[in-house]
Parts: sequence; C-alpha cells; structure tokens
Amino acid sequence: MKARVTVTLKNGVLDPQGKAIESALGTLGFDGVGSVRQGKVFDIELDHEDRAKAQTDLTAMCEQLLANTVIENYTIEIQ
Amino acid sequence: MKARVTVTLKNGVLDPQGKAIESALGTLGFDGVGSVRQGKVFDIELDHEDRAKAQTDLTAMCEQLLANTVIENYTIEIQ
Repeated sequence: MKARVTVTLKNGVLDPQGKAIESALGTLGFDGVGSVRQGKVFDIELDHEDRAKAQTDLTAMCEQLLANTVIENYTIEIQ
Repeated sequence: MKARVTVTLKNGVLDPQGKAIESALGTLGFDGVGSVRQGKVFDIELDHEDRAKAQTDLTAMCEQLLANTVIENYTIEIQ
C-alpha cells in the first residue's frame, strides 16, 4: 500500500526558502507570481493492506517524526 | 489562482534522506514500512485566472528552476 504525506508550513510562519524562489522566479521573468510556499512530501510504501492501521500509523509518524506540528500542517493520502 | 507543484526523485535515484527517515521510523517502532522517498512541494499563487497561461508558465518554472529534470520528476496541479 502506498501513501503520500504532504507537510506544509502553517499560515503566518515565515518561509525564507519560498521567498527566495519567489524572487528568483521574478528575476527569470515570470510575472504574476503572487507568493510561493515550499513544503515537503513523503512517499511511503507500507507492507500491509490494512487502511485503518495505515491511517493510524501514518498519523503517529507525522506527529512523532515527519512534521513539526508547532509550525507545520500535514495531510495524508492513502492510495 | 493557486497551483501545487510536486517534485519527486526519479526511480533509481538514490535518496539518502528518505533512507534516513525509513531507518528512523524503524527505530521509533513502526514496522511494515517498505520504503520512504522524500520530495518537495511548492504552493504557488498566481495573480491571474488564465489556466492555459498558468500551465505554460508553471511548466517553464519547473524546467528552469523548480526541478532538476535530470534526476527529478514534477507534477502540476492547478486548483
């Protein structure tokens, strides 16, 4: 079973990397770019096919390791 | 208009960060984790509502800046 976890910064948290990309896109001549925020994505392969266990496990993984829940949000998609 | 660009490593490209996460999840007691691959996500806000222009622009942004197309794949979702 495959799952994708997406971790993004919460609104209001400063994102210097996103700002740098925003300004680089401007330098490259792309106009009309309002804002850029960068996040992380984890593609996780699980050895079993139990969706409920997968959801529980992935939530625990996010809380304990993948996301810093003080400043980041996470979403889990099980495929 | 909002768009999300997801950049992931191509198959076969070594992902030491993913491997480290995989081993950390094992140490934390999560069994049944087959493999972990890490990628990047960019949430981009565009100032206009022209979907065709957005698609063209975002593809150019990926090719020129956001992705290293030698080792990375990218997907574009316009919302």
